[in-house]
Amino acid sequence: MRFHTRKWVKPEDLNPNGTLFGGRLLEWIDEEAALYAIVQLENPKVVTKYISEIDFKSSAKKGDIVEIGIEVLNFGKTSIKLKCEVRNKMTHETIITVDNIVMVNLDANGKAIPHGKTQVEYVSDRLASDDKTS
Amino acid sequence: MRFHTRKWVKPEDLNPNGTLFGGRLLEWIDEEAALYAIVQLENPKVVTKYISEIDFKSSAKKGDIVEIGIEVLNFGKTSIKLKCEVRNKMTHETIITVDNIVMVNLDANGKAIPHGKTQVEYVSDRLASDDKTS
Amino acid sequence: MRFHTRKWVKPEDLNPNGTLFGGRLLEWIDEEAALYAIVQLENPKVVTKYISEIDFKSSAKKGDIVEIGIEVLNFGKTSIKLKCEVRNKMTHETIITVDNIVMVNLDANGKAIPHGKTQVEYVSDRLASDDKTS
Amino acid sequence: MRFHTRKWVKPEDLNPNGTLFGGRLLEWIDEEAALYAIVQLENPKVVTKYISEIDFKSSAKKGDIVEIGIEVLNFGKTSIKLKCEVRNKMTHETIITVDNIVMVNLDANGKAIPHGKTQVEYVSDRLASDDKTS
Amino acid sequence: MRFHTRKWVKPEDLNPNGTLFGGRLLEWIDEEAALYAIVQLENPKVVTKYISEIDFKSSAKKGDIVEIGIEVLNFGKTSIKLKCEVRNKMTHETIITVDNIVMVNLDANGKAIPHGKTQVEYVSDRLASDDKTS
Amino acid sequence: MRFHTRKWVKPEDLNPNGTLFGGRLLEWIDEEAALYAIVQLENPKVVTKYISEIDFKSSAKKGDIVEIGIEVLNFGKTSIKLKCEVRNKMTHETIITVDNIVMVNLDANGKAIPHGKTQVEYVSDRLASDDKTS
Repeated sequence: MRFHTRKWVKPEDLNPNGTLFGGRLLEWIDEEAALYAIVQLENPKVVTKYISEIDFKSSAKKGDIVEIGIEVLNFGKTSIKLKCEVRNKMTHETIITVDNIVMVNLDANGKAIPHGKTQVEYVSDRLASDDKTS
Repeated sequence: MRFHTRKWVKPEDLNPNGTLFGGRLLEWIDEEAALYAIVQLENPKVVTKYISEIDFKSSAKKGDIVEIGIEVLNFGKTSIKLKCEVRNKMTHETIITVDNIVMVNLDANGKAIPHGKTQVEYVSDRLASDDKTS
Repeated sequence: MRFHTRKWVKPEDLNPNGTLFGGRLLEWIDEEAALYAIVQLENPKVVTKYISEIDFKSSAKKGDIVEIGIEVLNFGKTSIKLKCEVRNKMTHETIITVDNIVMVNLDANGKAIPHGKTQVEYVSDRLASDDKTS
Repeated sequence: MRFHTRKWVKPEDLNPNGTLFGGRLLEWIDEEAALYAIVQLENPKVVTKYISEIDFKSSAKKGDIVEIGIEVLNFGKTSIKLKCEVRNKMTHETIITVDNIVMVNLDANGKAIPHGKTQVEYVSDRLASDDKTS
Repeated sequence: MRFHTRKWVKPEDLNPNGTLFGGRLLEWIDEEAALYAIVQLENPKVVTKYISEIDFKSSAKKGDIVEIGIEVLNFGKTSIKLKCEVRNKMTHETIITVDNIVMVNLDANGKAIPHGKTQVEYVSDRLASDDKTS
Repeated sequence: MRFHTRKWVKPEDLNPNGTLFGGRLLEWIDEEAALYAIVQLENPKVVTKYISEIDFKSSAKKGDIVEIGIEVLNFGKTSIKLKCEVRNKMTHETIITVDNIVMVNLDANGKAIPHGKTQVEYVSDRLASDDKTS
């Protein structure tokens, strides 16, 4: 699994109990799944159709750094199925795991259409970096 | 199911495709579940432990009014199990249904403790209203 | 008066003194009045024209649950007059009362037009619930 | 009246009809009144107690620049009474006028205490500028 | 230099260490530069092209009042060059100084065009105030 | 340079002209620099001290995906010097380059202290992934 996006848990991200607000975390996951699918399907019009059960294993506190990982499970005809894990960069604890997020590929009118992709495409242009995770 | 909280879908709630951002909707659901549990368990320290699968049946657009309904399924010893439905107030379409949200009752140190509740309590004081939904 | 929308007072809603920021509360009231009027007038294009004096009777602190009640006072030809009360769900204290909010019904060009309504309409479809407030 | 703070109306400040969301405007006014009172009373612990009626005379659209003016009406023993006007910097139209905003001076425990001020104090140090409004 | 816009540092503006989040401050500066340029160039379509080095001299804490000053350095053919200083209204400490912000004047298609301005214009209409800074 | 965090440009991130608001972009950069430094210095108390000149080379529009890259230039005694590039994931255009961001390592009282680091540390635990960028 690739961990890209990182978030710094700021006061505006906390619930009244002083831990990371679950709703904010779900918002981050949904955005990450959407943009990951958009990049893979090369279509900006992609929507979340389904999210499987979410188990909150641990939380995060103010000042923690959270990172969000996404992995492709498989390509449907008009959809892409993703897996997501969020973990605490400092403690290495898993915060949440979502086994299954289905994103659907839409045309300009919002109707599902085939995306023609069958596998993860690696971006191997001048921008790519293949050094180790730092 | 009781539908309390309503949201007016504003530009800041949209995804780039111009429909209600799924992450924002999840944020609204998590907040509603939390405050519903807090009122029922009479304890401000309640956290989301589990959310069952989420199926996005329809969406909402700018200017739509969305209402969020919560229903108690049962009371565990240290938890409460809720059901949630979000629907479009104008079209009466269901946007999302979540069969099962588990909220856990915590003590001051963040440890699960029994809440002592076994059923929904109706608030029947001077503030209560029992007229029809308008 | 019907109390629908509830808010959970989060860190992002506080003023620097640690109590609910008055400006946030006014924002919540204006949104609730707008969406209530939209539902009653069955027109998404409704704007706030007038808000009568606001007396801050009590405040709320982090973790409190606030609920917003709206009641129709009367229907004008192109407007609707509302009354609003915000109270603390936990303490049952009134936070704010606004005796008079005038919302105006607009056409597509932003001009006031008659809305044709003369009384509150009860929504009595499959979605309606008439059980007690929980 | 002195006009200090200016706001650029961005997409996140709009209601679904595409004009400046009234609730956002009220939030801006409350913040401006608070910080003006804090500077005059030289006490960071000041809260909004009362806002007189608000008449929305005109609105603003995306990209407009709005400026907020505050003027002291008089000093009470534990309070300060302000007047507020918001206008559109481009069109010079008045958007809103609030005749009377009462801010109360609090001690560390949140109790009203005398502030000892009787008139507006002009800051005449190295930071002061007395050139014309540009 | 004219100091117009003031901000009240609220919990949502803090970084996890409890001081003003630098990113929020940069956001405020960019907005102030944009609206200042819009007013001077009398064109709503102005974008930030360049910001010179930023040295964080001091910070601000919750409840502080921050004010943002802008001064015109010179008028280019299609641009305007500004200087910015942010200071703490209470302590009179400078928080940040930016020697050079270049804003570019665009036409409807987003192409740089001459703005025809050569000097700061003073607004001397009925709205102008020339009393001292309070 | 490693590109980690990605952002989906949503309506709330736009300026009134419909392109990515520069202030939002600066906010994203400052957060990314802060969390990168926190991970490298293994100290949650790190602040931005200096940002070198910023040249806005291109912009982004609604729906674009933006990614933020950070690279360590060198380690000072109490600071770390970073380089930052933001680019558009779809077009591969560079939006902004910042040659030099200095983050300072603080102790609990906010005073600069040596961090003891001299080079980038690679995280080579169970969480590390070394597959190609997808």
